[in-house]
Amino acid sequence: MSDPNDLAAFLDLGWQRLTRGVQDRRAAARHPVFATVSTKGLPEARTVVLRAADRGAATVEIHTDSGSGKMISLRQTPVAQLHIWDEKARLQIRLSTSVEINQGASVAQDWARVPEGSRMAYGASPKPGSPIARAHAYTKLSRESAFAVLICTIREIELMQLSDPHRRAVFKAETGWQGGWIVP
Amino acid sequence: MSDPNDLAAFLDLGWQRLTRGVQDRRAAARHPVFATVSTKGLPEARTVVLRAADRGAATVEIHTDSGSGKMISLRQTPVAQLHIWDEKARLQIRLSTSVEINQGASVAQDWARVPEGSRMAYGASPKPGSPIARAHAYTKLSRESAFAVLICTIREIELMQLSDPHRRAVFKAETGWQGGWIVP
Repeated sequence: MSDPNDLAAFLDLGWQRLTRGVQDRRAAARHPVFATVSTKGLPEARTVVLRAADRGAATVEIHTDSGSGKMISLRQTPVAQLHIWDEKARLQIRLSTSVEINQGASVAQDWARVPEGSRMAYGASPKPGSPIARAHAYTKLSRESAFAVLICTIREIELMQLSDPHRRAVFKAETGWQGGWIVP
Repeated sequence: MSDPNDLAAFLDLGWQRLTRGVQDRRAAARHPVFATVSTKGLPEARTVVLRAADRGAATVEIHTDSGSGKMISLRQTPVAQLHIWDEKARLQIRLSTSVEINQGASVAQDWARVPEGSRMAYGASPKPGSPIARAHAYTKLSRESAFAVLICTIREIELMQLSDPHRRAVFKAETGWQGGWIVP
């Protein structure tokens, strides 16, 4: 094993596991849990799909239905923490992010790249979360107007590895991702 | 398959999958993501271990180090959402809960049941999250005084099953868990 005190290598590992989620449907990072704060100030979490991860820009990208509950939360409190538990690497990844919502003309090119079969995730009648009389009493619409791209700018990355002994570090944008060890 | 409109059966499925997490270390519900709101109003999420689930009392139980970050958050905002993605059942379980922190004499019996090898999860020097110079520059203390039991009283259960077509329902304590379908 490499030097357990090598912070740069630890951060590299985090980005490797994260990036894998974009390319590999079976990677743990493919499906982060996306935690937000509701308009009532309550914690919320749901599974999302990781669409892009850019280390240079320090961003990750998520696509969502603009009628979804998380959009209501993000309009008031535009921050999210993404959580990944990567069993193979015994690694918990937590990304603290600021979220920018993009819709309409600015994401037309992204929409063009969404496969036909995946488009039905965007737009539903009634809207997601609406009460309905029967389980299947809704229609998926495949609407470009309901397609939203969330650009999540990473402010902080926390990594915790359940190696023996455990190790845990925090890397912050404001200090150039230099990082520091913290007690697990 | 049974009637897709059977709300009671859907809730039964949710509780079956949840309860399994207590008994079976390999069950998805063994390791929920525990989402809270920080003292700064920011979303936070981390993996926890499900220690108990009681349908009659509508509670789930989590154990934690009383020096952990989540304790600071919970003292100010004593609510949590537990998130589980159960791949085998294609089921997302979200529990909206109010959290009661128990420590000291009231949890002495719980501490007595914590296996020797698991006790080192409670108490660390310095405290969890403290900056340290090297990855392993900390000691685990196995301290009963650092053992906290979080009793999470469930206010709402949301289930989303990625069957074809998807189905999603919300069950609330205030309406006697009767439940209702909502748009996925």
